[in-house]
Amino acid sequence: MRGLSPAFVVAAVLLQLASAQTFQRLGACPTLGCIFPPDQADFFPGAFFDIRLEVHAPVNGTEASANGVPDQNFTFCIQQGKGKCQDVTKFFSVKQSPLETWTFSYFEDLFAKDAGTPVIVNVASKAYRALSLNKPGEYTARLKYNGRSETVAHWRVRDASKRKKAKNAILFIGDGMTQAMITAARLIAHKSINGRYQTLMQMDQMEVLGHQMTHSIDSFITDSANSATALYTGHKSSVSALNVYADSSRNSFDDPKFETIAELFRRRRGGALGMVSTAYIADATPAALCSHTRDRGQSASIVYEYLYGPAKLNSTLSWPTSCEGPDVVFGGGAEQFIAGAGSPNGTDFYKVFQSEGYNVVNSKSQLDKVGNKKKTLGIFSKSNMAKWLDRNVYPENLRGLKNSPTGDNTDAVDQPGLKDMTLKAIDILHARNNGKGFFMMSEAASIDKMMHVLDYDRALGELLELDDTIRATIAHLKKIGELENTLIVVTADHGHGFDVFGGADTKYLAAQTDDRKKRNAIGVYESSGLSEYMVAKGSSPANVSIVIGAQGPNFPVQWDPRYTYAGGFAANPDRREGFTVNTTGPRIPATSSTDGVVGNPLDQPHGFHVDGTLPLSASEGVHSLQDVSVFANGPGSEAFRGVYNSIDIFFKLADALGLAH
Amino acid sequence: MRGLSPAFVVAAVLLQLASAQTFQRLGACPTLGCIFPPDQADFFPGAFFDIRLEVHAPVNGTEASANGVPDQNFTFCIQQGKGKCQDVTKFFSVKQSPLETWTFSYFEDLFAKDAGTPVIVNVASKAYRALSLNKPGEYTARLKYNGRSETVAHWRVRDASKRKKAKNAILFIGDGMTQAMITAARLIAHKSINGRYQTLMQMDQMEVLGHQMTHSIDSFITDSANSATALYTGHKSSVSALNVYADSSRNSFDDPKFETIAELFRRRRGGALGMVSTAYIADATPAALCSHTRDRGQSASIVYEYLYGPAKLNSTLSWPTSCEGPDVVFGGGAEQFIAGAGSPNGTDFYKVFQSEGYNVVNSKSQLDKVGNKKKTLGIFSKSNMAKWLDRNVYPENLRGLKNSPTGDNTDAVDQPGLKDMTLKAIDILHARNNGKGFFMMSEAASIDKMMHVLDYDRALGELLELDDTIRATIAHLKKIGELENTLIVVTADHGHGFDVFGGADTKYLAAQTDDRKKRNAIGVYESSGLSEYMVAKGSSPANVSIVIGAQGPNFPVQWDPRYTYAGGFAANPDRREGFTVNTTGPRIPATSSTDGVVGNPLDQPHGFHVDGTLPLSASEGVHSLQDVSVFANGPGSEAFRGVYNSIDIFFKLADALGLAH
Repeated sequence: MRGLSPAFVVAAVLLQLASAQTFQRLGACPTLGCIFPPDQADFFPGAFFDIRLEVHAPVNGTEASANGVPDQNFTFCIQQGKGKCQDVTKFFSVKQSPLETWTFSYFEDLFAKDAGTPVIVNVASKAYRALSLNKPGEYTARLKYNGRSETVAHWRVRDASKRKKAKNAILFIGDGMTQAMITAARLIAHKSINGRYQTLMQMDQMEVLGHQMTHSIDSFITDSANSATALYTGHKSSVSALNVYADSSRNSFDDPKFETIAELFRRRRGGALGMVSTAYIADATPAALCSHTRDRGQSASIVYEYLYGPAKLNSTLSWPTSCEGPDVVFGGGAEQFIAGAGSPNGTDFYKVFQSEGYNVVNSKSQLDKVGNKKKTLGIFSKSNMAKWLDRNVYPENLRGLKNSPTGDNTDAVDQPGLKDMTLKAIDILHARNNGKGFFMMSEAASIDKMMHVLDYDRALGELLELDDTIRATIAHLKKIGELENTLIVVTADHGHGFDVFGGADTKYLAAQTDDRKKRNAIGVYESSGLSEYMVAKGSSPANVSIVIGAQGPNFPVQWDPRYTYAGGFAANPDRREGFTVNTTGPRIPATSSTDGVVGNPLDQPHGFHVDGTLPLSASEGVHSLQDVSVFANGPGSEAFRGVYNSIDIFFKLADALGLAH
Repeated sequence: MRGLSPAFVVAAVLLQLASAQTFQRLGACPTLGCIFPPDQADFFPGAFFDIRLEVHAPVNGTEASANGVPDQNFTFCIQQGKGKCQDVTKFFSVKQSPLETWTFSYFEDLFAKDAGTPVIVNVASKAYRALSLNKPGEYTARLKYNGRSETVAHWRVRDASKRKKAKNAILFIGDGMTQAMITAARLIAHKSINGRYQTLMQMDQMEVLGHQMTHSIDSFITDSANSATALYTGHKSSVSALNVYADSSRNSFDDPKFETIAELFRRRRGGALGMVSTAYIADATPAALCSHTRDRGQSASIVYEYLYGPAKLNSTLSWPTSCEGPDVVFGGGAEQFIAGAGSPNGTDFYKVFQSEGYNVVNSKSQLDKVGNKKKTLGIFSKSNMAKWLDRNVYPENLRGLKNSPTGDNTDAVDQPGLKDMTLKAIDILHARNNGKGFFMMSEAASIDKMMHVLDYDRALGELLELDDTIRATIAHLKKIGELENTLIVVTADHGHGFDVFGGADTKYLAAQTDDRKKRNAIGVYESSGLSEYMVAKGSSPANVSIVIGAQGPNFPVQWDPRYTYAGGFAANPDRREGFTVNTTGPRIPATSSTDGVVGNPLDQPHGFHVDGTLPLSASEGVHSLQDVSVFANGPGSEAFRGVYNSIDIFFKLADALGLAH
């Protein structure tokens, strides 16, 4: 914990500031002079980063100043420890950067938004690119502007072990996965007799347990872009930002970048790199391994960066490092590969990958057959991949979607699961790393996606698939002799407020015609019952017989017992609830109307209506604040014990992999 | 993990059983022959327990058998390891017990309840009291009845270290405290700058982190009685049960008992014992230290047991151990001490405690002054004690309650907080333990009580008081030289499904007149904002200035900022929500009506209506499934790492204290 900076407190006295929270002028810049990386930033020795400086002059509003003319003669110096503050050009031996100017606007609060009265802000700015700080210790950066005003940023370069503890590291991310979900998944997929589980989740059995705090730099709820950024880089940022601090300019590619663990691993270790996700592969959590943009929606640019890094994408910016084309890229999102509106420059991006030496596969069958020696791109569907529940229990739901990754308008019915992709990725990374080790991120993306649509059954299916994948990964690493060399870390990027609060008698619920009376089908405390998900249909009660069905161990043998768990959300749009699995595909809880979002009458039609507690624009559930769990095994895992900030995951990983060298 | 018992699976084939979950015939007995302790029970070497056997003959319903006449000639034998199965009388060298018979009824499901058609069950039973198993290992208990039918229970006596690791142990229980609540409390009471907390919770800084599973033996949601039972005894039981397995007889004092850690600590170590709670002192979490009854509502009997144990209370049952009058008993609940309907036998129970050598205090002032040499009873209010928020921020709310612990109808305005009680308790236990060490349970009871009434502001105040108490306890133990000798464990007994999902602009919300439009005051993701709870009223924005106000560090300096966190529940009765602190006392979210429970129009009148998702009989929120966190420091704390069952807390504590001797 660092103490408060006295200079920072002084700044508060000098300026009269707006206290807007719903909208902020610029998140990590509460004063009119902005330094990025901002105060309190931590750095890994030698990792690359950009600096962005901004001086703001609001034309109107509570912060209006300098007649709306920003000071273009601001100065910026950096000092190491208690040394002299040297001009940035001297400190880093770089040329003076050109001045940039622009204007942006924002609303000070919801009243201003309703009234249509934005604040206009004029900006003077400079940026310095691709710098690094090598020596551990404290640094102070000072931006002077408007005469006496000063913004001070305290930076720290953390010390890092030179000793490599782990040859390989695998980071599993259960997107949106909270401990309440892990507990619920255990309930439905593992048998308990008289309060004792006969088997456990693999996560339950990991050597190390930790918690990490997921908040953003400028808001307490994060999205997956900036949370993945924190996990991979040690820098927290803003919602939607991938490996950049959010500046106020309109260009979503000029924001100040910083290096990711994947880039560092490539640059310093030269090992093999893997990226696996059940999402479209340009989605935030995989994207944050290799991409740098203020806007996570720039899907074409994101996949372009996988191969070529940000330097080639935007030639005005120098950036000396990239993922160099990960050895493995497995996921959905064929829209960025089929020649068309979604692909980089409209090209056939499968061909571009092939031209860069990749095997390309588009189905589980092809994945099973492809060799391990070449880099491999596996894109298995348009958009997000099929869910475990649909692939394994309701496979007819894969029909009619016309989502083939080849773009031929057939259905992507031959999709691998997370386990298939992850084990194959390990084989390729193992074959290709030349003794230099590998780093892989494997994401169970649809835990989050299904919680967003309040489809907790599908979300728990995804979570159980993740757990099954971790279990299989440990066994597979053991088989190939790499288990002792591999750090395995399992965590989430944020939560969803979800918990199980009782059981529901779905037969009784469906038999009631009155919305309120249906609620009496819910049992709490002693009436919550026992889990029937491990009892085959038509057999004896939950705590007597156990039948392992088609889905095999560690998954439920039925998903629609009469007595189910009753789950609920801390926040949701208007919706209907009947506590039954949706057999026809993911739930669609809410729809638009002239009065904003309303509950979807076709979702759980036998259920009852529940009012929402979200803004009327929200048609899905949202992320939540709670700390998420971290589980780890293997060399370097000890460091993951306890409670820490999300950014520490990066530093612990980089330290275990010896990336400071 | 123990494998499935083949005999147990066979039993399923022999019987046709009901699959009722909302109602169960008898929770831990799915077959018609019942053994308590049931299959899968674990025992601590030498700890006392009772055995209860039941043979059921349902007269009607899906399990109707033997014309409703239970087999009175059942036999019961026990075998150690692979040895011979010896009749219980021979195995334990006890006399044959008399046969008992009774009848009970239950509903097979909600349809049967609506129709008023219960199942009648006749029972034949025997009980054997105050037994113990000393030798670690596996045991098998076999109940034979109805000719070929057999119920088999696999028991295990766990091995335990003979070496004492910790002289003292303090168990802090945050009742109902989940990680989401700890995260929310950190948000409002600790300052973050650019995503970095400048200070942390004490819980965040403990050496050891673990998770425990809280479910009951016969339902997946627990209450505080059987969860505390699990934590203190290593035996899970049923909702409402205190240190007994729930049998089917009507008598709530004849159920099979087992020994608690407090009794074991008294019997084997002879150390000092402390019980501290902000609840009424007969409430479940303190009660489970010393009391044994099927019905947690037996408040008078419960406090009687604190002094005399179950043997004196019900002379027909022999029970060789008790808490022997804890050295410290601090909490609320004067109703059990003022002579009257609520006290044991209507007596002045303050006087009884005095006659047993206790100092008795009834206010913070008296607590501060009382010496440390005698046993001390401190009862500071009727019912539950005042909440931190009311004591410290809205003290006028302590007026007009006529809840003085003396019974004189004045207000209990001079109440200590959890910290005051805990530190004083440590002084007394330190002074009285004669080098034999002490064991104390200290409970922040109203985290749970305030979450029940959806008053998350007050709940977080209680949680912060717990954290402050832990911090002060560590400092105090250090000061008196006992820190290195003391195992500190912090955990919860269960969760509530609660999480923070965004921020709310309370000014904008209150200004809207339409319920739906009010929801647009809620900000999610980047609009969730920063915490303003550490910013003094009228000062600059959250991330610039920090002012520590009247409540001191580690608590918010204001509780009603314009921009607040928005919290929600996995389940709730109909209610209103406006995201503002209730300044007049704890919230009352719902009230009764002819159509069941409805939202209270007087709660958050400026807010909007939210439908409930609970049965219409529920006027409060309910407990939830999620695993809860465990934090620990000191000798023996290493064992609390990882993920485990709630019963393991007992075994780890008993092991650290060397109670196996």
